[in-house]
Amino acid sequence: MARIVKKFGGTSVGDVARIQNVARVIKSEYDKGNQVAVVVSARSGVTNELIRRAKAINPNPEDREMDMLLVAGEQETIALTAMALHALGVDAFSMTGAMAGIKTDPYHTRARIVSMDCKRLIEHLENERVVIVAGFQGANESGQITTLGRGGSDLSAIALAKGIDADLCQIYTDVDGVYTADPRIVSKARKLPEISYEEMLELASLGTKVMQARSVEFSNKFNVPFEVRSSFNNNPGTIVKEEVSSMEDVVVRGVALDKNQAKVMITNIPDKPGSAARVFQGLSDANVIVDMIVQNIGRNGVANLTFTVPRDDIDRASKSVEAVLAELGGGEVELISDIAKLSVVGVGMRSHSGVAGELFSALGEAKTNIQLISTSEIKISVVINESESDEATRVVHSAFGLDKED
Amino acid sequence: MARIVKKFGGTSVGDVARIQNVARVIKSEYDKGNQVAVVVSARSGVTNELIRRAKAINPNPEDREMDMLLVAGEQETIALTAMALHALGVDAFSMTGAMAGIKTDPYHTRARIVSMDCKRLIEHLENERVVIVAGFQGANESGQITTLGRGGSDLSAIALAKGIDADLCQIYTDVDGVYTADPRIVSKARKLPEISYEEMLELASLGTKVMQARSVEFSNKFNVPFEVRSSFNNNPGTIVKEEVSSMEDVVVRGVALDKNQAKVMITNIPDKPGSAARVFQGLSDANVIVDMIVQNIGRNGVANLTFTVPRDDIDRASKSVEAVLAELGGGEVELISDIAKLSVVGVGMRSHSGVAGELFSALGEAKTNIQLISTSEIKISVVINESESDEATRVVHSAFGLDKED
Repeated sequence: MARIVKKFGGTSVGDVARIQNVARVIKSEYDKGNQVAVVVSARSGVTNELIRRAKAINPNPEDREMDMLLVAGEQETIALTAMALHALGVDAFSMTGAMAGIKTDPYHTRARIVSMDCKRLIEHLENERVVIVAGFQGANESGQITTLGRGGSDLSAIALAKGIDADLCQIYTDVDGVYTADPRIVSKARKLPEISYEEMLELASLGTKVMQARSVEFSNKFNVPFEVRSSFNNNPGTIVKEEVSSMEDVVVRGVALDKNQAKVMITNIPDKPGSAARVFQGLSDANVIVDMIVQNIGRNGVANLTFTVPRDDIDRASKSVEAVLAELGGGEVELISDIAKLSVVGVGMRSHSGVAGELFSALGEAKTNIQLISTSEIKISVVINESESDEATRVVHSAFGLDKED
Repeated sequence: MARIVKKFGGTSVGDVARIQNVARVIKSEYDKGNQVAVVVSARSGVTNELIRRAKAINPNPEDREMDMLLVAGEQETIALTAMALHALGVDAFSMTGAMAGIKTDPYHTRARIVSMDCKRLIEHLENERVVIVAGFQGANESGQITTLGRGGSDLSAIALAKGIDADLCQIYTDVDGVYTADPRIVSKARKLPEISYEEMLELASLGTKVMQARSVEFSNKFNVPFEVRSSFNNNPGTIVKEEVSSMEDVVVRGVALDKNQAKVMITNIPDKPGSAARVFQGLSDANVIVDMIVQNIGRNGVANLTFTVPRDDIDRASKSVEAVLAELGGGEVELISDIAKLSVVGVGMRSHSGVAGELFSALGEAKTNIQLISTSEIKISVVINESESDEATRVVHSAFGLDKED
């Protein structure tokens, strides 16, 4: 007998037929004699529709009321999922986040989970009842309903797995698992049987949309291994877990490509102390997240500064920089949107040297120019031309021995 | 300073513009310096849509999960209404039924309110905050969410008015108040400034759709006077309250017409003891509510039995009766749908004689044949031809001096 948490996102419970499919997946686990606790999101689209209605009534809705509103979405799904299980003859019981014992801090719309009180929920499991928990929500100390922000249902599932000491936490999504590269670009990409939290975190932050970085951080912090798998087939997915030494045998776990990037180049900034700081302060005030940064001091007392930002933020970034340069009295801005960020990720880099060299020579062979470079302990990223980036990804994937055998 | 409960039904909060209208009505009360607690229903249509989805997943959904599902509808409305008040600069706070302290018995989908614990809610009111409470819902002793059944939001409002010792409870609907007759039929109908619980109860049970009889019974039991008024204009409505002696001065308060009736005539039933009982037992088993009943014993040992049923139930009623007659070995059934029930209602009938005579002579003048008669302490009902019923209502309305002056 195992105790298992399964989490299904909004697409997996998007309509009546899909909820019935989810119920069948749950039943087949339950029929093996396992204890099953399930976390579900709101039907895809529901949360956005509720937000749209709220904004039509009040452009700046109060966070507390936003939470009261949004939890209605999951409440619908938990009840419908329980009903679908009943229709299959499985005893099931739905619980709101508050009922399930998910306790959060007081901060509405972005609450953090502070503790789990799963006594009641465990009683239901031990009475051979499947429990369906509303994801994304909890309650604070004074009993007010809170929500956990984007990706919150994954957090709920991982916290629940910790709270009930589950043997397995399965995150069902519309992808099969984590791949060595995006299979739509690299046809020879392989599904990874396992990956460390840190590698997953880098991949998440690189725009691989399997999971929000926040949920991976959370599972890393509390060491809750989980499996990412598809709700539409029965294939084994990818286990995300603590790093074990054997993982280092593979130097590069995967190659990520992020095309949602733009490059901002500032030339001839008056080279006074604090110039760069003022540029980045301005961007921060404008809520623009800056990624890779390179600064060169020129010979003639002027500096060049280059950095990347999310492509959607390019207008805000450019306005902010123009304003700061006007104050500083100099400098020109150039915006370049047709770039992409290619990254190789792997915990094996800690103990293997020469990865950067291999990456650069692979890109050289592919005749791809490198515009910017940044490195971390387990990752090397380069900015290249967007038009060359798909081919470059295939070449790098192959160069690091990641291609699957035919 | 007064403490006021306002209840808005599903039509009144049916879309963004209507919720904004409701917020303006609330604000104008709040601006007078009054404490305002508000009860709202789900947007019209939402509850039925949720039920449709549930039935698609499970034709016999469990009551407990049905309640978990349905309360999502009101939860959306309370949050949106609070947001609309914030947009008008009014401090407002939404509460689920459970948060508002509405405690019910354990019976899901048809719970009865057993007590109100309004301490927290009153604190908010005393802090000059409008409180928006989700109607139709509460929580039972073990913290499970329950719903109160059809018309439940009116019950919530009346219970809340009792719980916070409100000075006034206002039920906002899509009608202006209670009239002496349906103004669409009787153009000279007058809006009643006040009416007793019992009179309202008779009108409700006669199909006047202002409120469910159940809610009127509840307000009668706990003596909570309330006002029925329109959410679309600012006219004073009708106060429903305990009978006072001056009310008896008016013999007939109103004339009600119910066209949703059909007549079942059974002739030549073998006149054995228990024949009629078996007919009515069969109808009860088929969930058909029987209204007016007349039985004649014929000279030749056979009986005739006539009764009315809701017109929608005529098929079920006829099948049930046919089956019983087959068992009894005799009798013929005739179904007559083109009938209507006309009733005059008034607490003054208790102390005035001759009302029946006046009614019959008015109908005689209108050349309307009376098919069935039934009387209660404060009501006389007759069954007449549907085709003559509108004109008969006008004549009776006039005969009892109810017409408004031009």
